[in-house]
Amino acid sequence: MNDAAPPEIVTAGLLVIGDEILSGRTKDKNIGYIAEYLTNIGVDLKEVRVVADEESAIIAALNALRHRYTYVFTTGGIGPTHDDITADSVAKAFGVSIDVDPRARALLLTRIAEKDLNEARLRMARLPAGADLILNKVSAAPGFRIGNVHVFAGVPAIMQAMLDEVAPTLKAGARMLSQTLRADLREGDIGSELGAIAKAHPEVTIGSYPFFDEKRGPNTNVVVRARDAERLAAAAAAVEEMLQRVRAAVSRTA
Amino acid sequence: MNDAAPPEIVTAGLLVIGDEILSGRTKDKNIGYIAEYLTNIGVDLKEVRVVADEESAIIAALNALRHRYTYVFTTGGIGPTHDDITADSVAKAFGVSIDVDPRARALLLTRIAEKDLNEARLRMARLPAGADLILNKVSAAPGFRIGNVHVFAGVPAIMQAMLDEVAPTLKAGARMLSQTLRADLREGDIGSELGAIAKAHPEVTIGSYPFFDEKRGPNTNVVVRARDAERLAAAAAAVEEMLQRVRAAVSRTA
Repeated sequence: MNDAAPPEIVTAGLLVIGDEILSGRTKDKNIGYIAEYLTNIGVDLKEVRVVADEESAIIAALNALRHRYTYVFTTGGIGPTHDDITADSVAKAFGVSIDVDPRARALLLTRIAEKDLNEARLRMARLPAGADLILNKVSAAPGFRIGNVHVFAGVPAIMQAMLDEVAPTLKAGARMLSQTLRADLREGDIGSELGAIAKAHPEVTIGSYPFFDEKRGPNTNVVVRARDAERLAAAAAAVEEMLQRVRAAVSRTA
Repeated sequence: MNDAAPPEIVTAGLLVIGDEILSGRTKDKNIGYIAEYLTNIGVDLKEVRVVADEESAIIAALNALRHRYTYVFTTGGIGPTHDDITADSVAKAFGVSIDVDPRARALLLTRIAEKDLNEARLRMARLPAGADLILNKVSAAPGFRIGNVHVFAGVPAIMQAMLDEVAPTLKAGARMLSQTLRADLREGDIGSELGAIAKAHPEVTIGSYPFFDEKRGPNTNVVVRARDAERLAAAAAAVEEMLQRVRAAVSRTA
């Protein structure tokens, strides 16, 4: 069927940093965007954590994620004010010093007059030793990469521009393929049969998502996911055959 | 100023369970809702984790959160299909058995005919030993509470109904009060001054949130938060005085 070596799995963790997300004042828009983006480029997002603007919380989460996944992405906390402590926390997590980076300072001066480059704005040029800049087309203030950790802004438009910048540098794994089958049945009608198919196709992930259909009422989407196209097709065919059988049985007893 | 004992801090962790969130297929709507709800009832959400439908990941995250915070809330994974493994994972995390609960089974039978209560649907009545049911007004399938962990559905309407059911049973801490001051200045204009005020008011949390103002361009909201009304007022007054001073200085040099 497929004699090639199994495709490499490339994984990621996402760390969202910000009191305003945890208080509910700001509704996060980055998790869903990054999740979809990474899926599309063959990187498996395995875990997300949201933590407050507290150094110990950021360091603990960052160290847990960076040792566990191929890549880590962080959003938030790289602006000019006292509550922007991401760069300092990342430096501490890596055990390196932090200082104003001449490349980042020069970059800020392309958009900010020297007289306006006060202590607060200079905070945005402070980078952990050994970090690379992540540019973006929206603002002059850069993100940065150190080790496997990519530090992005929290403002969605800037975060998205930084992700575009970084994406071509990432190792891409085999892309996860997926197929959605609309059941036209309730989730509870197909649960046991779906479980049996999932067991018979261990290399395929089968998810079941109930939704409310204006016309039919409670309905279900079955999502079949795999990296291998043949395996995906085989599992999807088994699900489709089962759905037809259960639909016929349900309509007979209705 | 305030001789009473400091108000109790009640904390929470949130665990969002589901492959569909991590793949980006479904955009989470529960984190922001729960964050805002908890803030309003005096519970501090300290951390959120999103994990896949994998038993080991759910157990590890749940054990980390439940030992750290007053309460844990989980969303997702309590439906009738094979990928709904939250109840089993919670039972394992607590080291207790799991079986069909007669109360939950009776509840399902109020909405589902006995002939339709197949093995898949009965999964929704499986509860860890010692759990209490969490009812909801939208669906018959219950959530449950065990120890300090509250297990909710992932569908927002059902999750919200379950949270309404649980809220009156929660210990409420002193509510976090907040005041938002619109700076009419750029974040970088006030960073140093704001940091000095934050240092002088250690019991108050001061956040700075840039936004784009159609009329003025880059602008900033300063959010001052505290549990004590007097402390909040003192810090907000200091911020307002500083904003007026910086506005005057900026307009002189403009």
